Amino acid sequence: MTESSASDLTLEEKASLTSGADFWTTKAVDRAGIPSIMMTDGPHGLRKQAGGTDHLGLASSVPATCFPPAVGIGSSFDPELIERVGAAIGVEAAIEDVAIVLGPGINIKRSPLCGRNFEYFSEDPLVSGVLGAASVRGVQSQGVGSSLKHFAANNQEFDRMRASSDVDPRPLHEIYLRGFERVVTDAQPWTVMCSYNRINGVYASEDPWLLTQVLREDWGFDGLVVSDWGAVNDRVAGVAAGLDLEMPSSGGRTDAQLVAAVRAGELAESVLDTAAQRAIDLVRKAERRPAVTGPLDVDRHHALAREAAGRSIVLLKNEGGVLPLAPEQKIAVIGAFATEPRFQGAGSSLINPTRVDNALDGLRAVGGDRVTYAAGFAVEGGAVAASGRSEEELRAEAVAVASVADVAVVMLGLPAAEESEGFDREHIDLPADQLALLDAVIDANPATVVVLSNGGVVALPFAGRVPAIVETWLLGQAGGGAVADVLYGAVNPSGKLTETIPVRLEDNPSYGSFPGEFGHVRYGEGVLVGYRWYDAKGLDVTFPFGHGLSYTTFEYGRASVTSEADGDLVVSIDVTNTGERDGREVVQVYVAAHASAVQRAPRELKAFSSVALAAGETRTVDLVVRREDLAYWDVRVDRWIVEPGVYRVEVAASSRDIRSTSTVDVDGDVVSLPLTMESSIGDVMAHPVAGPIVIGALGGFLGELNGADSSAASMMPNDEAMEKMMASFPIGRLIGFPGIEVTHDQVEQLLAGANAGTLPQA
Amino acid sequence: MTESSASDLTLEEKASLTSGADFWTTKAVDRAGIPSIMMTDGPHGLRKQAGGTDHLGLASSVPATCFPPAVGIGSSFDPELIERVGAAIGVEAAIEDVAIVLGPGINIKRSPLCGRNFEYFSEDPLVSGVLGAASVRGVQSQGVGSSLKHFAANNQEFDRMRASSDVDPRPLHEIYLRGFERVVTDAQPWTVMCSYNRINGVYASEDPWLLTQVLREDWGFDGLVVSDWGAVNDRVAGVAAGLDLEMPSSGGRTDAQLVAAVRAGELAESVLDTAAQRAIDLVRKAERRPAVTGPLDVDRHHALAREAAGRSIVLLKNEGGVLPLAPEQKIAVIGAFATEPRFQGAGSSLINPTRVDNALDGLRAVGGDRVTYAAGFAVEGGAVAASGRSEEELRAEAVAVASVADVAVVMLGLPAAEESEGFDREHIDLPADQLALLDAVIDANPATVVVLSNGGVVALPFAGRVPAIVETWLLGQAGGGAVADVLYGAVNPSGKLTETIPVRLEDNPSYGSFPGEFGHVRYGEGVLVGYRWYDAKGLDVTFPFGHGLSYTTFEYGRASVTSEADGDLVVSIDVTNTGERDGREVVQVYVAAHASAVQRAPRELKAFSSVALAAGETRTVDLVVRREDLAYWDVRVDRWIVEPGVYRVEVAASSRDIRSTSTVDVDGDVVSLPLTMESSIGDVMAHPVAGPIVIGALGGFLGELNGADSSAASMMPNDEAMEKMMASFPIGRLIGFPGIEVTHDQVEQLLAGANAGTLPQA
Repeated sequence: MTESSASDLTLEEKASLTSGADFWTTKAVDRAGIPSIMMTDGPHGLRKQAGGTDHLGLASSVPATCFPPAVGIGSSFDPELIERVGAAIGVEAAIEDVAIVLGPGINIKRSPLCGRNFEYFSEDPLVSGVLGAASVRGVQSQGVGSSLKHFAANNQEFDRMRASSDVDPRPLHEIYLRGFERVVTDAQPWTVMCSYNRINGVYASEDPWLLTQVLREDWGFDGLVVSDWGAVNDRVAGVAAGLDLEMPSSGGRTDAQLVAAVRAGELAESVLDTAAQRAIDLVRKAERRPAVTGPLDVDRHHALAREAAGRSIVLLKNEGGVLPLAPEQKIAVIGAFATEPRFQGAGSSLINPTRVDNALDGLRAVGGDRVTYAAGFAVEGGAVAASGRSEEELRAEAVAVASVADVAVVMLGLPAAEESEGFDREHIDLPADQLALLDAVIDANPATVVVLSNGGVVALPFAGRVPAIVETWLLGQAGGGAVADVLYGAVNPSGKLTETIPVRLEDNPSYGSFPGEFGHVRYGEGVLVGYRWYDAKGLDVTFPFGHGLSYTTFEYGRASVTSEADGDLVVSIDVTNTGERDGREVVQVYVAAHASAVQRAPRELKAFSSVALAAGETRTVDLVVRREDLAYWDVRVDRWIVEPGVYRVEVAASSRDIRSTSTVDVDGDVVSLPLTMESSIGDVMAHPVAGPIVIGALGGFLGELNGADSSAASMMPNDEAMEKMMASFPIGRLIGFPGIEVTHDQVEQLLAGANAGTLPQA
Repeated sequence: MTESSASDLTLEEKASLTSGADFWTTKAVDRAGIPSIMMTDGPHGLRKQAGGTDHLGLASSVPATCFPPAVGIGSSFDPELIERVGAAIGVEAAIEDVAIVLGPGINIKRSPLCGRNFEYFSEDPLVSGVLGAASVRGVQSQGVGSSLKHFAANNQEFDRMRASSDVDPRPLHEIYLRGFERVVTDAQPWTVMCSYNRINGVYASEDPWLLTQVLREDWGFDGLVVSDWGAVNDRVAGVAAGLDLEMPSSGGRTDAQLVAAVRAGELAESVLDTAAQRAIDLVRKAERRPAVTGPLDVDRHHALAREAAGRSIVLLKNEGGVLPLAPEQKIAVIGAFATEPRFQGAGSSLINPTRVDNALDGLRAVGGDRVTYAAGFAVEGGAVAASGRSEEELRAEAVAVASVADVAVVMLGLPAAEESEGFDREHIDLPADQLALLDAVIDANPATVVVLSNGGVVALPFAGRVPAIVETWLLGQAGGGAVADVLYGAVNPSGKLTETIPVRLEDNPSYGSFPGEFGHVRYGEGVLVGYRWYDAKGLDVTFPFGHGLSYTTFEYGRASVTSEADGDLVVSIDVTNTGERDGREVVQVYVAAHASAVQRAPRELKAFSSVALAAGETRTVDLVVRREDLAYWDVRVDRWIVEPGVYRVEVAASSRDIRSTSTVDVDGDVVSLPLTMESSIGDVMAHPVAGPIVIGALGGFLGELNGADSSAASMMPNDEAMEKMMASFPIGRLIGFPGIEVTHDQVEQLLAGANAGTLPQA
């Protein structure tokens, strides 16, 4: 069977394939047997609009399972779990005849303020990349495509369609592109979605460096690049840069621009052919999807959503064994979130869930009528708010139920209106009425457990005043049951923080530059994002990256590190569940070069593994650190470089709970740069051939500099200081200096000889 | 009398005028009656080499008065004092037939690590500019030229000859260029010295934007630009950019390049003419210097150096009235710096002093044999070190003298080898042996006064454990007497900090990016340099910017602010010396806009005045805030913009000791930007003409977005959120969107009509 290719199509037909038919589908070319395919929003469930595909479907979509958003499920640090959830989403897509699910989103959480952080995994690129790849594998296992987004450096919502993320090469490669690279190379997503923003002044939607050089040439991406919806600025420049598919429809306007550009010789037809061929290839992939028919097994997917939600919960603090709760305890559940759960974030990822559990029901299913409830506060737009009861009344009721309970469970969180796609937060505080309510409850009953629902990090000023804090993030539709599972211990919590909880917003590295102004945001903190910054600055945090407790305890043995033939490191360590309950531990490996030519964080996460351990069980855990992940981006040669030398390898329960430290000697890459007139005297002196010659030639001058010709005190405190100062002089600058008896030609010969490995002419 | 001009010279002669004859002099053109002139290093005294001008004169120079370096004298916050010292340096230059003194250096102290910070005034551009201008006025009052340096953004020594200071436009203009602008416009230095480094990738020595557009066109500089010694990279590009004079001599090599470039048509002869004419103009200015003959009045200048040193000292802490000392007290002076004073920094500014006082002699001149001494520790290269006595022995002796004294005065500081031109420090700690010595002395005698000698900020971990700390910085040759003057109270200390003393180096805004790598240093903290950062981040500091105590006390009345016709603000406040001693107070005015479109520091210093007040005296102090100093640099229009609205005006004794706050309403500048296809919907909606039209045209689409056509929940939490999201959409992106019934032409007409102030066609 021969399939039609771009070369069989007319110019107009090819152009037509490079933009949408409407909001959600591509254009068919019936004559050539190329059907239309549909995309829908993701990433943690399907948002397929009800009705036609000619509108955004903002208001209503077909019911789908709302799995925990990335902020939640990322806390599992478990690619296997995320892959299973991805597969379930793929099934739902297949049932709905959706070819591509728009996700995962793996942008780095540069600031806790970014309104869309709930859709992203982490402040760390390895976590983002490994978990993003798992999500892609899962969805694509069902013959449904993923769309890895938002490519790239889209770390805020403010002015997102114009703002330029001004990022230096190292942070751009090491932090903001690294996760994308991992997903592309490990999981080959069918599509990559370019972001709205500009990067260093160039729109992602028309950046040939980003969309072609980096994505395709460096990483080997062979899929299709689709625009974020409305991201196209200059369509012709976009196609030339490697943006294959514009979404949504432009009403034919930009197709005509492409045709005209080809006719005018401004765009090579072969470039358009390539884009059209990628669109055809995508359609063909979609056509190969195995037939799946509904109806959706709602119960099974809800159960998976509950399992995933249970794995998403992070037990931040648990003193005095207040958790888990016992069924026979009197529990006062306080907080409107118990009945009006905040389980997903607003914007394009908003799911119309098949059902929604709430925590109060879940808790009562275990504790029965020993579980009492008081709303305590109202959440904007909710039933409690609609009831019109006063703040004082709600608080008094809460205090009353708390004071007669064994334990008060206070469910606090961010109202939906405070975090959403489309805008950023301006602070990280919980609402004042919630904090006041909490204070009142603590006064009434110190045995208070705080349970948090929030898509972005919130400050926890009460962290020292309550015995237990449970961060549930956003848990999806089955979160209510999962909260009960964890609080009563049916599920032993195992989530860990994929982002630091800082003491204050002001401590965040982007504070002062986020979200920029007048179309530019400077990523001034460079590579020191997230825990890299807090560690480098030695700042206290409320809870560190990687932190999360369990109802059991884990002991770590001594780490050993071995180098594989390909340069990867294998870190082995025995981990023992030393408690009475089965549990899971997220074992983390952090690495740091002992000495580096570049600014590096004190530690960087290089491997992790979620390990299930029965009570009393010991397992040897092997974690692989890829050699390439030891590299930094070298701006001198525009590529990754692994520095040779000793690296410290830490096996840890969190970024600030290092359990075993080892070292390993790594064979590095050689960076050999030719000597030039701009090479410093230090560089030249260090050269095995040129060094002794230049020292001889400059001897008289250097002698004077060292004060050798004078008994008076030198202007420099000592010879070492003089050498430091002189070492920074570019050799070319000394030519002609009074006292320097060297000509330009002589220096040029010297450098050429040194570079060629031959001695220069005397 | 007609003087020869560049047009009378041959091409070769003109080229010859644009580079030095040797290390220190320009070339003469005898035929045209153009003599050679000499330059020497400054800035806080003359470093004229002994012997010929054909070498750097690194090892010995003629004796000159060593006044306090900028780090010291800047603490006076007193332009009048600095002008007097400048005039004295001018006199010394004139006696030595020196036409130009290379200084002042006014680079911003971005990091406390910069090895050359001792030559600079402040972390604040207003302080740098006002004091720099005073220095120029002083020197030039004697018919001797200044050379304002190092232009620009030269804030580190590491790789200084190649590193690119990568600075965004706002910090570049508001922080790093602002002081230079002030000096140029207020004091017209004869010359400006370009720095070694690159700025955003371009060498300062060949940057037409810096040397011509900013310096001459924007600021009106009409003098000569000279290279830092060895800063020329490409001579032809340099002349084209506005670098008039290369120093030192290139041995004729670059003169020949210029001649060849003109002959080849690569450089317009008129450009070379301009450079040569500036060299001639400079020589003519120098020739007009009134005749001054020596010998130098060494005693008079030494007395001025002592006065200046007394004004340079900052009393950081003084609890329990431990200071001033009384002549009848038994004083244990401890620390090798008492006999081996550290009074200046190393490098090109190193003076061969006419004499040097030490603190021990100064103190004994008052306290006689009640002043005992123990070295306590050795300073590298000093006599104590040469004595070979052990650390333990020195410490035991110190403890012995301290324990029987009324007060221990411990003189700590940085060895000369730790801070110098040519390299940066790697930490801000005092040597461990000095800190250990201090601990031992405190144990022996809690009445311990720490006296510090250091060119760059040091951490003060002992600040809470001693009753008094005196920061003397580097005081010049007469510092020993000045220390005695202040400790015994003959001089009431009045210096204040021109830079923050942080708790830890890690707190500094440049930490993590300083000093960069591989030829680039990113100024990632933007405008938040120095106290701007500590305030914005809410960080504790050991002593804040502007802090300094007195032996008397000052009370502030209520500030009033009035606007002048030209927009300048006059801030008036009564200040009263409420103590028993005459004294000086540095009154500071900080300003902040209540609301701003850009990231601004919580407060910025906008005026200051050093006010002498007799005991009991009240004076009304008027401080002028220039309207231009309220402005920020607007990247949209590439110029200074004063925002309209309310400004908070704080009159303060330090940046963290605000004494009176007022507000003033300021008429701002209007920034009117045309609407374009990239204008956001929010921008367009805010437009009085276009707004209602676009709202009408987009109504249906916006209605859907708001969920108006559906009973189901919107994907956005509320209408406000939806509006925020939509407001960021560039209007041009919506054309052709499904549901948007607007054509490209219609939008173009709308925008054109709005910009022209006419209604568009319907």
